[in-house]
Amino acid sequence: MTPIMPKADAAELVVAARIRKKLSWSDIAAEIDAPLVWCVAALLGQHPMSAAQAERVCALLDLDAAVGESLQLQPARGIDPAMLSDPTIYRFQEALAVYGPAIKELIHEEFGDGIMSAINFNVDIRRRQDPDGDRVVVTFDGKFLDYRW
Amino acid sequence: MTPIMPKADAAELVVAARIRKKLSWSDIAAEIDAPLVWCVAALLGQHPMSAAQAERVCALLDLDAAVGESLQLQPARGIDPAMLSDPTIYRFQEALAVYGPAIKELIHEEFGDGIMSAINFNVDIRRRQDPDGDRVVVTFDGKFLDYRW
Amino acid sequence: MTPIMPKADAAELVVAARIRKKLSWSDIAAEIDAPLVWCVAALLGQHPMSAAQAERVCALLDLDAAVGESLQLQPARGIDPAMLSDPTIYRFQEALAVYGPAIKELIHEEFGDGIMSAINFNVDIRRRQDPDGDRVVVTFDGKFLDYRW
Amino acid sequence: MTPIMPKADAAELVVAARIRKKLSWSDIAAEIDAPLVWCVAALLGQHPMSAAQAERVCALLDLDAAVGESLQLQPARGIDPAMLSDPTIYRFQEALAVYGPAIKELIHEEFGDGIMSAINFNVDIRRRQDPDGDRVVVTFDGKFLDYRW
Amino acid sequence: MTPIMPKADAAELVVAARIRKKLSWSDIAAEIDAPLVWCVAALLGQHPMSAAQAERVCALLDLDAAVGESLQLQPARGIDPAMLSDPTIYRFQEALAVYGPAIKELIHEEFGDGIMSAINFNVDIRRRQDPDGDRVVVTFDGKFLDYRW
Amino acid sequence: MTPIMPKADAAELVVAARIRKKLSWSDIAAEIDAPLVWCVAALLGQHPMSAAQAERVCALLDLDAAVGESLQLQPARGIDPAMLSDPTIYRFQEALAVYGPAIKELIHEEFGDGIMSAINFNVDIRRRQDPDGDRVVVTFDGKFLDYRW
Amino acid sequence: MTPIMPKADAAELVVAARIRKKLSWSDIAAEIDAPLVWCVAALLGQHPMSAAQAERVCALLDLDAAVGESLQLQPARGIDPAMLSDPTIYRFQEALAVYGPAIKELIHEEFGDGIMSAINFNVDIRRRQDPDGDRVVVTFDGKFLDYRW
Amino acid sequence: MTPIMPKADAAELVVAARIRKKLSWSDIAAEIDAPLVWCVAALLGQHPMSAAQAERVCALLDLDAAVGESLQLQPARGIDPAMLSDPTIYRFQEALAVYGPAIKELIHEEFGDGIMSAINFNVDIRRRQDPDGDRVVVTFDGKFLDYRW
Amino acid sequence: MTPIMPKADAAELVVAARIRKKLSWSDIAAEIDAPLVWCVAALLGQHPMSAAQAERVCALLDLDAAVGESLQLQPARGIDPAMLSDPTIYRFQEALAVYGPAIKELIHEEFGDGIMSAINFNVDIRRRQDPDGDRVVVTFDGKFLDYRW
Amino acid sequence: MTPIMPKADAAELVVAARIRKKLSWSDIAAEIDAPLVWCVAALLGQHPMSAAQAERVCALLDLDAAVGESLQLQPARGIDPAMLSDPTIYRFQEALAVYGPAIKELIHEEFGDGIMSAINFNVDIRRRQDPDGDRVVVTFDGKFLDYRW
Repeated sequence: MTPIMPKADAAELVVAARIRKKLSWSDIAAEIDAPLVWCVAALLGQHPMSAAQAERVCALLDLDAAVGESLQLQPARGIDPAMLSDPTIYRFQEALAVYGPAIKELIHEEFGDGIMSAINFNVDIRRRQDPDGDRVVVTFDGKFLDYRW
Repeated sequence: MTPIMPKADAAELVVAARIRKKLSWSDIAAEIDAPLVWCVAALLGQHPMSAAQAERVCALLDLDAAVGESLQLQPARGIDPAMLSDPTIYRFQEALAVYGPAIKELIHEEFGDGIMSAINFNVDIRRRQDPDGDRVVVTFDGKFLDYRW
Repeated sequence: MTPIMPKADAAELVVAARIRKKLSWSDIAAEIDAPLVWCVAALLGQHPMSAAQAERVCALLDLDAAVGESLQLQPARGIDPAMLSDPTIYRFQEALAVYGPAIKELIHEEFGDGIMSAINFNVDIRRRQDPDGDRVVVTFDGKFLDYRW
Repeated sequence: MTPIMPKADAAELVVAARIRKKLSWSDIAAEIDAPLVWCVAALLGQHPMSAAQAERVCALLDLDAAVGESLQLQPARGIDPAMLSDPTIYRFQEALAVYGPAIKELIHEEFGDGIMSAINFNVDIRRRQDPDGDRVVVTFDGKFLDYRW
Repeated sequence: MTPIMPKADAAELVVAARIRKKLSWSDIAAEIDAPLVWCVAALLGQHPMSAAQAERVCALLDLDAAVGESLQLQPARGIDPAMLSDPTIYRFQEALAVYGPAIKELIHEEFGDGIMSAINFNVDIRRRQDPDGDRVVVTFDGKFLDYRW
Repeated sequence: MTPIMPKADAAELVVAARIRKKLSWSDIAAEIDAPLVWCVAALLGQHPMSAAQAERVCALLDLDAAVGESLQLQPARGIDPAMLSDPTIYRFQEALAVYGPAIKELIHEEFGDGIMSAINFNVDIRRRQDPDGDRVVVTFDGKFLDYRW
Repeated sequence: MTPIMPKADAAELVVAARIRKKLSWSDIAAEIDAPLVWCVAALLGQHPMSAAQAERVCALLDLDAAVGESLQLQPARGIDPAMLSDPTIYRFQEALAVYGPAIKELIHEEFGDGIMSAINFNVDIRRRQDPDGDRVVVTFDGKFLDYRW
Repeated sequence: MTPIMPKADAAELVVAARIRKKLSWSDIAAEIDAPLVWCVAALLGQHPMSAAQAERVCALLDLDAAVGESLQLQPARGIDPAMLSDPTIYRFQEALAVYGPAIKELIHEEFGDGIMSAINFNVDIRRRQDPDGDRVVVTFDGKFLDYRW
Repeated sequence: MTPIMPKADAAELVVAARIRKKLSWSDIAAEIDAPLVWCVAALLGQHPMSAAQAERVCALLDLDAAVGESLQLQPARGIDPAMLSDPTIYRFQEALAVYGPAIKELIHEEFGDGIMSAINFNVDIRRRQDPDGDRVVVTFDGKFLDYRW
Repeated sequence: MTPIMPKADAAELVVAARIRKKLSWSDIAAEIDAPLVWCVAALLGQHPMSAAQAERVCALLDLDAAVGESLQLQPARGIDPAMLSDPTIYRFQEALAVYGPAIKELIHEEFGDGIMSAINFNVDIRRRQDPDGDRVVVTFDGKFLDYRW
């Protein structure tokens, strides 16, 4: 009996295969017909894949079955704290520090006492062209949940 | 000579006046013709207001000039760490922990090596109606900045 | 214009009045016809009360209107970290440290990939008599939310 | 002489065998006739098993004797701090942050000065069907211990 | 209505009165017929006193009724973290760092899987004369609690 | 040349051998004629053993000479912070949080300005029978050291 | 006898006076004939001023003598940790995280084993015009100190 | 399939080869015609290199292709926190603690509300000869970005 | 009854009086015939003074009796963590980080297993003239204490 | 190509060889004619050795050339935080907590505004015989550096 390959190891092998085969994340997402951000998050270890999805990813990337088994495992979700200071990720932290309390005020004004779900939730990222420089547009879209006793 | 009123104290007075006068954040933003999230963030102490904006806010809310002076002050930006565990704000933290590395991968795939600016940046929040329960939709929109030596 | 009384100050006044008037938490919950744990949490600053609830609490406890105004305020939720090491609260932390991963496994086995909501949620506490010493029974009851993109 | 297999390694092998053999946690608990949450916690390393229990688990899962030896070891209890931000576990933390002080007040009101034991203690988890969505119900049940000099 | 005096403020007043009246802690403990360490801990804010005890302490020390009311309050127990580096207290921390795991081994060897209660518990401190220099002898005495599901 | 086996590795081998040979810690302490708590602490890596002691321990437990060499090494003392939240050890932490400042007051009252040494120091642990449940009695006994310039 | 005004309070009064009198930091630096960054740092509490400098600052800003006394006080230097996440300051932190080890390599290659002094040290900040947007140029200039036993 | 060599491992091999071949960092930067600080930062893992640059570095240093593949990988940027207390790096931290708020004031005075970019940014380090001891001169040069909604 | 003045407040008043009366720390130490470092540490709140010492200090500095009462109070010793990053104090921290393990090795080589006492201990600071720049010489002198069970 | 042996690994081999060959640190320092504390610190990884020194150490201790190469490497200086709570090292930390602010006051009184260098610096440790028990005397001797713009 051997342990299941840790999801972090599976993610490293996916990343290596993706680069060496010169595939984009979109190519992989298209192969399994999944939303792009969800697919990348799942391959990096944040969501379990179905057996079918895991098999098609492994076939596309020539990865062996141990990777596919790992991709189906229920994850313990979260981020390596060191990643939070990577500048590309940190800017989102900073935006949350500057605008978080304002967003909270406006959620309560519009919806009442409750939260945006992070579970019934999706994220979208796209490029918006702009003559002053193209823009990264990231949309967080979650069901409103009101405090309900 | 007295110190300028701290922005946190000014924010508390703005909040108190807004509630007692039964004004919405949108009413205030409309009065000064400013984007909604920007306006709330500024009144909570994260952006300096112009003299004209500060005066109109104080007039609308019957606040005295010391509040207006404070609203114009250049802020030291950031969030009280205790606020990060408020559930309404925490869900954004959690979403960043789950999807941050995926967002990073996709920014680099689409734009190359760089970041979404948090300075040349805006946030929008809106309600999207949905038969399964309305949704909170928050859009982060920042200029892409590539690493350029 | 004065700021709204902080919820922590209102809570201290509620606690003082409750003790001096020799009322139990149950007396107060009965007065406003609210669930017991919800009522205590609200008075300690974790939920906003309706105007009617706040007024009846203030009338019962002879507290002035500034307390009632504070009780209706939208809270920033959370706990003073120092409270987490109070032995009565710490035992719940410890139970979570010992049984949290097991609970996670069993939620996933029974419900699939998702969480127990802490928003659509209630808590109940009761005494269960036992010849070996009575027991504290605390029940967390939250809607299951599955990860849904 | 070799060291005893760390309980974390034993837990990984148990998890891998359980998945590959398509057994549920309940199947294992039934095999050793133990309460479900206790059994999962023990297999994840939080309780020592008896020799008989360890042997039957290893027989059921085809694990070798080194795993069984490890399962009998007295544990150093606790949780990897990174696990506390897994969303499924975090919601319990959040509930404790919101309701912990209220629970403390009510324990003292009902029982006097003391605590719920986390040692003479059990946890139960069950699904409660509900037309608005099934619910996760977790019950903490511990003997009351009064401060007694 | 005024809040109840915080236990930390009451403790400061007790300490000041004790010093100015040249009373020892033993004098106070004798007055209320309580164990010495318990009494000092209670006056420093770690245990609630009965009304009778609080009154006699206030009478002995000429403190007003607000102090007595505070002494009866249910405490939130714990220590200011800064105090843990005071050398007199730190040596106990250090002893726990050096001998804690050995004590754990021996509790399990002698008693089985469980803990020493810190609730059904008392502490005693005494001077032991020794030709090489007198010794501080502190005894922790707690009921053994075995893990019992 | 190879490095000396780390004391943590030596401790793991001692623990494994002790369990497999069904020896108690007392058996080992008796073999080397050392105080019980000291002996366990030393074997867990907190004190250097003499060459003679190390040899007799290795002989008793059938451990090879590399373990004996490690047991004689001067230690870097301290505890893995994760161990501090093990419930059996944590209760001592909690007792220190609740009673530490009281103990400090009483040391100063009885001895003047100074500390209990944690170096010229011993710990004893014993079982005290009690009809209400046997008790763990742990005695810290250290030389008083007064601040002396 | 009153304490000397804390340097943080003096800094707040200097900032308030500077803004209300519509003076720039350069105006103040010119008045006391001091380097610009040094002058601002000193007024914010990081360097002691001479009596003559402090008097001229107070005269220029109509501040009373207590401010001047404070400005001459020997400081305890350092930064409020909350300021480190202000975006304007954080970018320097980030640059240090990205380039610090490279700077270390190059200091050792060019100068040998040692450091850039932060004591025999000055900082200059200037605007450099650039058609792609003006630039902030900050120069750290410190004496090299080699490790010398 | 094997994972891509971690950038930290590639950096160690670059450092080892550079020392054993007695090449300076300048020699390497010259070989790939890149700015010196950028080149060292990239080789230490903070910037991706182009394929051509990576190949020439590997050729110069006799490193195999796996190193070159790693050097082209998109990095997760940041610093090992332990490095921040290395004295050569710490002096920059200290300078930021002492002068950071002053630099912030002067950026706002000169440029308005905004930041120095750490992305459109370069660093230069040079030796300035001085009769009192040569000086390390480090220049941070970043585009000013104003807060722009 | 009023609380005893906190030692931090007494220290601020001593510092203010010392500066305004243009007395040196040596003048005060001479007045009470105490070692210089001990005297400064005591006045900053780290040692209790005798009644006679406290009175003479107050007479010399024209401070009222409440300061004298505070100076006699048994202290809770320790340092404000913010002070540890003041550069003058930090250099000692840095020296300890660089040389601490070497000092430990040499204490054990010369004295055996034990420590330098920080209680039976004194510190001396003096200027040593040197043509290359005068030097600060700080001597820590503590009794060796061997681990003795 | 292999990486250079980490200095921590080299230090472990030096320690092992020193013990097995029954050499004292003084023997090694004498062999390379270096100050004792400097030599130990260098061998533990805090200073680079010259090629000649490294070779003589390796010859004396029969260590192979890879150790010698490592000893010459430029170090990243600092201490494993876990070592700071080793009692032998902690006492220096404690002394700094108790006397640090007093030392700072006296450096400023004697030398003006500046610091003791930790770079142009040496440490000496010696035994001073004393009828009440021998003493550890550690002298920190660093050049005074005044703040000089």
